[in-house]
Amino acid sequence: LNGFSRLNLIIDAMGGDFAPDEIIKGAIEGCSLYGAELTLVGDKEIIKNCSEKNNFSLDEARIINSTDTVFMDDSPSDVLKYKKNSPVYLASEYASKIENSAFLSAGNTGAAMACALFNMRKIEGVFRPAIAIVIPLGSRKFVLIDGGANTEVKPVYLQQFAIMGKVYCREILKVKDPRIGLLNIGSEEKKGNEITRESYKLLKETKINFVGNVEGRDIFEGAADVVVCDGFTGNILLKAIEGMAGFFFGEIKKVFLSNFITKVSSLILKKYFKSMKKQFDYEEYGGALLLGINGIAIISHGSSGAKAIKNAVRVARDSVNNNLISKISSEIKG
Amino acid sequence: LNGFSRLNLIIDAMGGDFAPDEIIKGAIEGCSLYGAELTLVGDKEIIKNCSEKNNFSLDEARIINSTDTVFMDDSPSDVLKYKKNSPVYLASEYASKIENSAFLSAGNTGAAMACALFNMRKIEGVFRPAIAIVIPLGSRKFVLIDGGANTEVKPVYLQQFAIMGKVYCREILKVKDPRIGLLNIGSEEKKGNEITRESYKLLKETKINFVGNVEGRDIFEGAADVVVCDGFTGNILLKAIEGMAGFFFGEIKKVFLSNFITKVSSLILKKYFKSMKKQFDYEEYGGALLLGINGIAIISHGSSGAKAIKNAVRVARDSVNNNLISKISSEIKG
Repeated sequence: LNGFSRLNLIIDAMGGDFAPDEIIKGAIEGCSLYGAELTLVGDKEIIKNCSEKNNFSLDEARIINSTDTVFMDDSPSDVLKYKKNSPVYLASEYASKIENSAFLSAGNTGAAMACALFNMRKIEGVFRPAIAIVIPLGSRKFVLIDGGANTEVKPVYLQQFAIMGKVYCREILKVKDPRIGLLNIGSEEKKGNEITRESYKLLKETKINFVGNVEGRDIFEGAADVVVCDGFTGNILLKAIEGMAGFFFGEIKKVFLSNFITKVSSLILKKYFKSMKKQFDYEEYGGALLLGINGIAIISHGSSGAKAIKNAVRVARDSVNNNLISKISSEIKG
Repeated sequence: LNGFSRLNLIIDAMGGDFAPDEIIKGAIEGCSLYGAELTLVGDKEIIKNCSEKNNFSLDEARIINSTDTVFMDDSPSDVLKYKKNSPVYLASEYASKIENSAFLSAGNTGAAMACALFNMRKIEGVFRPAIAIVIPLGSRKFVLIDGGANTEVKPVYLQQFAIMGKVYCREILKVKDPRIGLLNIGSEEKKGNEITRESYKLLKETKINFVGNVEGRDIFEGAADVVVCDGFTGNILLKAIEGMAGFFFGEIKKVFLSNFITKVSSLILKKYFKSMKKQFDYEEYGGALLLGINGIAIISHGSSGAKAIKNAVRVARDSVNNNLISKISSEIKG
């Protein structure tokens, strides 16, 4: 194990559009590939039936049985209050108790965040955990933080998002001295709203490589390695990027299907567009990290397939191996 | 003139990356095509020299001479205070004084908005004017309001944005009973921040075809004809769409240039992609309308070419012919 500690992956096996099949498949593959111990949390019967049906080997996996079911429209507070026997609650609780663990869920995002926060707690000194998500852009990428955890923010929150995003980008994406940009509607310091103006001042004085304001356009031109914003704007942006990518690839398909000639040409170009499409694949990074939590908590996309989960295991392993949490902790303390 | 009043187009001839050449060219073409009277505001010498050089005929145009120059980084309030002899100030002032007029600028957006508001005033009862911009999406489109005029909003502002967007969409884009969506980070009523939650309640009770919250993803799937949001989020979204479109078409180009085979295929597909690209062309609508101003005020993109300006004249003519301002006024009064 190259001197590293073995990761303990604790996964909500029932969360996600393609649970449990794709979740369990990805978890088994990922843990085998990245040398991690697997704990599946969910309805034991369902997990066993699913594994038999798919010929998954559960020999190396621990199963924690759950009796409550979390639905996509359950409110996070209801899950915390009334569904303490749900996979998402039990998985985050278990993750908080053992070493070198990571909690992973592709289910109800709000519930996963609430359970992670409640059971795993915050890193000391962190005001608000935030969602850090890697946006792949062809040969480039950037980290967006906050992707949706905090709809209301203060400048000091954004300052911490910048610090946590920096550590994540440096330790996991291996970018030396990441360039941090503040998402705003103009490049000048005084642009934007009260929050961004105050945040700009704070970020200038923070120990980060602050490149100033970045606009919606700039982020696609590689203006920053880490893009800092409130969770409302970040979530709108995140989903817009996803929606627009889907829309574009749909339009390209339409072009290909125009007539006989375009269909023939498309046969030749297909593999090139396929590899282009792959460069926008959010599954490459497996999910978003909830930074600021005192442990590794990964929130995967609801539509995650086995590949996303497998890659999330890689991110979890890298986070544990690089002591992400203790590095964030010491940078937050300053 | 089909019983309609003749439009008086009053244009800041010096504003925009390609001013004055492209601005004057587009204005002359548009006014000729759409039967409008043209007033060019700018440095008389420069306008005359530019027109001679390009063989533009100024026979039908009025020229108002300006002596101040507005730069892209001039603050709006400074322009109002110290540059009353600038093209943008004089054009909006003149537009406020004559009938059936439209003010158009592709220069400093903040200055254009401030001058329009100061000289042309608001429609009675309007709290805040907002930028309404048509986002073309292949065969579909939607109106985004606010695209950047108001970085801080109240729910009652968003309510008025919805009403103004509805009238614009109905009168200019000819959509019957436009579907109005509130840009938010979840579909449920209680999602989002305080502003969106309160706005949702208000919009439910407003005389509009309210379809509820729409997410960043939904707007690319035709979820609404009018997307209502604060100007901060709207501007981030607007520029992200622009940046992402540019990025995507760049990636397609890269695919085409991969090797000999793809180059040959691209020759066949080129025209199809060109027509696809055209469907995303913001120049089709010429610019954004500043709704809530007591007159037609069009803010064109800084990089507008003659085509955008020509199309902006069409939008201005349609706005005058359809009595856009009086219709907004009566709907705002309720």
